[in-house]
Amino acid sequence: MKVLILGGDGYLGWPTAMAFSRKGHDVLVVDNYLRRNICRDLDVEPLFSVPNLLGRIRLWEEKTGEKIGARIGDCCSYGFLTQLFKEFKPEAVIHYAEQPSAPYSMLNHHAAMLTLSNNLLSTLNIIWAVHENVPDCHIIKLGTMGEYGTPGIDIEEGWIDIEHKGRKDRFLFPRQASSLYHTTKIQDTDLLWFYVRTWGLRVTDLMQGPVYGLSTDETEIDSGLATFFNYDELFGTVINRFIVQAVAGYPLTVYGKGGQTRGYLNIRDTIACVELAMLNPAGEGELRIFNQITETFTVNELAEMIKRVGNERGHRVEIKSIENPRVELEDHYYNPAYTGLKELGLKPHLLTAEVLHDMFERVELHADKIQMHKIFRGVKW
Amino acid sequence: MKVLILGGDGYLGWPTAMAFSRKGHDVLVVDNYLRRNICRDLDVEPLFSVPNLLGRIRLWEEKTGEKIGARIGDCCSYGFLTQLFKEFKPEAVIHYAEQPSAPYSMLNHHAAMLTLSNNLLSTLNIIWAVHENVPDCHIIKLGTMGEYGTPGIDIEEGWIDIEHKGRKDRFLFPRQASSLYHTTKIQDTDLLWFYVRTWGLRVTDLMQGPVYGLSTDETEIDSGLATFFNYDELFGTVINRFIVQAVAGYPLTVYGKGGQTRGYLNIRDTIACVELAMLNPAGEGELRIFNQITETFTVNELAEMIKRVGNERGHRVEIKSIENPRVELEDHYYNPAYTGLKELGLKPHLLTAEVLHDMFERVELHADKIQMHKIFRGVKW
Repeated sequence: MKVLILGGDGYLGWPTAMAFSRKGHDVLVVDNYLRRNICRDLDVEPLFSVPNLLGRIRLWEEKTGEKIGARIGDCCSYGFLTQLFKEFKPEAVIHYAEQPSAPYSMLNHHAAMLTLSNNLLSTLNIIWAVHENVPDCHIIKLGTMGEYGTPGIDIEEGWIDIEHKGRKDRFLFPRQASSLYHTTKIQDTDLLWFYVRTWGLRVTDLMQGPVYGLSTDETEIDSGLATFFNYDELFGTVINRFIVQAVAGYPLTVYGKGGQTRGYLNIRDTIACVELAMLNPAGEGELRIFNQITETFTVNELAEMIKRVGNERGHRVEIKSIENPRVELEDHYYNPAYTGLKELGLKPHLLTAEVLHDMFERVELHADKIQMHKIFRGVKW
Repeated sequence: MKVLILGGDGYLGWPTAMAFSRKGHDVLVVDNYLRRNICRDLDVEPLFSVPNLLGRIRLWEEKTGEKIGARIGDCCSYGFLTQLFKEFKPEAVIHYAEQPSAPYSMLNHHAAMLTLSNNLLSTLNIIWAVHENVPDCHIIKLGTMGEYGTPGIDIEEGWIDIEHKGRKDRFLFPRQASSLYHTTKIQDTDLLWFYVRTWGLRVTDLMQGPVYGLSTDETEIDSGLATFFNYDELFGTVINRFIVQAVAGYPLTVYGKGGQTRGYLNIRDTIACVELAMLNPAGEGELRIFNQITETFTVNELAEMIKRVGNERGHRVEIKSIENPRVELEDHYYNPAYTGLKELGLKPHLLTAEVLHDMFERVELHADKIQMHKIFRGVKW
């Protein structure tokens, strides 16, 4: 398939590009290095450095003989984006081109404005570029489970039937998130859902939980093909960050009571889910929503698992509860459905001790590069 | 009270500013003439011209002795906005500073982008300016009944208790609108609701129906104090537009079957509602939502009422159904609650024949200024 990957330089975008290229898809990646620039500006670069996007692509071709196309540019520029769609005529577009950090979005007015405008203006441009150039193109947008928040009722896959005063109707499942970043993901869904109904777009919304892992079949090919691995409070997701903290001898920082329950998935499963969605497109005028997680844990459970594996590997791992910098419930009901992607054929990679040992091993190789000051910064909500 | 009126040059903003000034409030209005510029660019100026904002204010002072402060500038500029809040320290801010036309928002990519970015970036800036300068300031934001769309269940005032699989929780009432403009009003609520929960802001969201009318007690004082009166398809709300069409001998253009039911209110009631909300502020950490309508009509009912009154006044009024340019249901269930504002003390001005006669009389005075080409343009969804 001809697939356009927006945000193709990112933690998920780059491994997706390689995986799809290897499977024979015709891949064009787009990125404006926003994530790299923010990380540099705020002194929270990843654990190890990686080549720039064009360098990655050259290395990929050298090692595999496969070509990946690339354009450096901003999806918020409509002239740039619509021209791309016109020329490349993608059958599917994967929208990873959003500012993805919740703590970053809460940092200050500038970061909030950047998050809101980047995430929504890019989405509106994608919608229009599809409508004006390739109306049948399938838009796959990464959402987040965080959009649902932690409601007192079971979380369904995107939709809910509501019975009210003797009448019934079907609606988007209620969404109320706990960061500005997550709120922009509610808002981009508002946009997509409106244009799906109005213009008959084909859209899949993947409500993803925090992703963990450093490696996929393709990153294994060469160390220069690795993806970003952030371990800081802004861009490091909790499992990735805890492992670095364990290796560094820095206590695992649990926010508050640690009863916060979330759904997680391995980076390999993200790529598999996106591919399953792409190979089985949404219908015309359909907003299809999947909850993209494979299992749920409390933060305490994660900390305990990582402590156990870390100790087995000779690290002295401590868990330390700190005052919760976020406004969120620390102990709550959480029962999300997540069967849709398994029905499409997903075979989950669960968070076993073996998976954790493998992650530890890779992080240990870079132990000398861990910068303690990057781990904690105290961003408050 | 010290009140900041953003969008204070608009159809509702200017009459609100005068009404509050006359009641002794300390009023500062802000506008960037966005509405005037769009109307000029698209050749859909109002029926009669009015002085610019500073001219209106000079005339107001001349006629009443009351002063209104004014700043010309863009609420999307945070430097401008936060400085205003810092200096003026408002107790309440009325947020009318959004691009208010649904058809305009559907015109083309440029108009869509302008609507999305203006409406959301201004709202984010207001939230931050309040938080950083006057955290106790009450934000009154104009929403729209259109956010709810036309669900198959009763529409409550903003919130709904959902019982699902034996558990219960309370959520924002589901919203799915039928234009990009209306969608941006769902999205600004997403923003406000997030920061209400996170920072304890005080917010009232007034879910308003289409407003009609040309006159308030204050516009009566001098013809130069009149508000905008648009009769075009972009900025003319349905009742205002139908009356001009009736006077001009242009058929009343009903979209499709005309069974579209909406809630309406008189411009005098808008001002009363905003003042009631201001005098009875939302609590700290409260998002209070009122449905701001006084009665509901189908488009056919409105056309019939206006035809009857028009004929009585000697106009030959025809009703003509045209192909619906919008994607919307033309015949649907509609049962909204709207008791909250009446409980606060609203005394509605209903759409009587007398009110219509009065509107006709005022439009007839300007009959020679009606430009037929402005009435219909055929904006399609």
